[in-house]
Amino acid sequence: MDISPKLRLFVEGPLAEGENLDLDQKQIHYLLHVMRLQAGGEVALFNGRDGEWLARAGEVSKRALVMTVERRLRPQAAEPDLWLVFAPVKRARIDFIVEKATELGVSVLAPVFTRHTAMTRVNEERLRAIATEAAEQCERLSVPEVRPSASLDSVLAAWPEGRRLILLDEGGGGAPIASALAGGSIGPAAVLVGPEGGFAKSELDALRALSFATPVGLGPRILRADTAVIAALSCFQALCGDWRAPSTVCSTPPQTLSKG
Amino acid sequence: MDISPKLRLFVEGPLAEGENLDLDQKQIHYLLHVMRLQAGGEVALFNGRDGEWLARAGEVSKRALVMTVERRLRPQAAEPDLWLVFAPVKRARIDFIVEKATELGVSVLAPVFTRHTAMTRVNEERLRAIATEAAEQCERLSVPEVRPSASLDSVLAAWPEGRRLILLDEGGGGAPIASALAGGSIGPAAVLVGPEGGFAKSELDALRALSFATPVGLGPRILRADTAVIAALSCFQALCGDWRAPSTVCSTPPQTLSKG
Repeated sequence: MDISPKLRLFVEGPLAEGENLDLDQKQIHYLLHVMRLQAGGEVALFNGRDGEWLARAGEVSKRALVMTVERRLRPQAAEPDLWLVFAPVKRARIDFIVEKATELGVSVLAPVFTRHTAMTRVNEERLRAIATEAAEQCERLSVPEVRPSASLDSVLAAWPEGRRLILLDEGGGGAPIASALAGGSIGPAAVLVGPEGGFAKSELDALRALSFATPVGLGPRILRADTAVIAALSCFQALCGDWRAPSTVCSTPPQTLSKG
Repeated sequence: MDISPKLRLFVEGPLAEGENLDLDQKQIHYLLHVMRLQAGGEVALFNGRDGEWLARAGEVSKRALVMTVERRLRPQAAEPDLWLVFAPVKRARIDFIVEKATELGVSVLAPVFTRHTAMTRVNEERLRAIATEAAEQCERLSVPEVRPSASLDSVLAAWPEGRRLILLDEGGGGAPIASALAGGSIGPAAVLVGPEGGFAKSELDALRALSFATPVGLGPRILRADTAVIAALSCFQALCGDWRAPSTVCSTPPQTLSKG
């Protein structure tokens, strides 16, 4: 098994043997001035489609850098089809959730606002940058899609057929999470986490009534929203997702992610 | 089911009908000056032994407050016997781990230092205060014990018979966590989380060889230490702990917690 270089970057363009890559200014600055990459130095690159590849720095100058792709380190692998729908309020908490959800392998991050929460302006570009950096550091082969914020009502109205909504039910109305996820064959799913104060009672009642919702309980203690996000995503990955396989290099051919 | 008052405090003394309590200066300041508790106001109290009780403020003056215990809201309930052994490096991360582990129901927090990590001075009083506040806010009926920091070697040398050590094995050598914890009858346990950079290879080899260690994997992505702590504790509680019961008021008689 190839040992991946410590430097790892997400790129948009195709990755194949012999490709010469243009990196963006931020990436060049990071490699040259922060990490002091020298000519001949190695970087691992991924683009969400072609797997992870080893690239080598050619000539370096003060501002320019040519990277040449040499060989593939890992093929693209199928990843669990898991969304996180979250109703953020505070900026620091949004950033934290995006970073952790990326480490935990979600494929889509969907910030929503609810009737009863002040709509925090969500800067999607910033969230994408956070998700990209977290993806680079946790060694995943893709960057989760960060959707524009939308009202929870509109997201639910457009809910794709066949996707389960795992609802973190603070009111105590849900099945224990391990029971709800037992068997591991839940299919495409989403976890919905409410705002810090919890959902309004009327919202929670409406959510529980949805045909595609599975209310779950996370025990007898009150969990903060950031704890609950990590807890629920971890339980999902452990019971239904890619924590089930022994941790090896995946060799599954890429699948089309369900757009759902 | 009684609705607990929003104000909730941990006290050391006994809780029984008619008790008049002395709160400490910090608590009095918090109730009078931060929360503006008035005469007749309600506070929920717990002490880790007698369950949760409703207490009412009597006369209030600028610096003094008499609380009289009225009735029990919840009986003391058995809690999962789960330790967290962790090798902290940065102060902010230590605080975070103590807070989250408390929300996640651990009974003992054991900070350790390893051969290869700089020993961060751990202020146990501060950690106890953090654990106490987290216990008050998450509505648990006890405060986890915060042990003095010790070397990992000494903690392992004194390891109690019958307690499983769940080792988060970043090297990929562990069984998937849900497989390792399947069946839910693991008994008294501890989760061991290494320092931010991971354990040294020689340390990890030695840990895996321990007869009481169960190495587990948390999937193919690299998790930061703070993510891994929440993930592992959540999976434990979901599969083996008190997230298995539907979330209701517990009416189990108190058990002697195994001192182990």
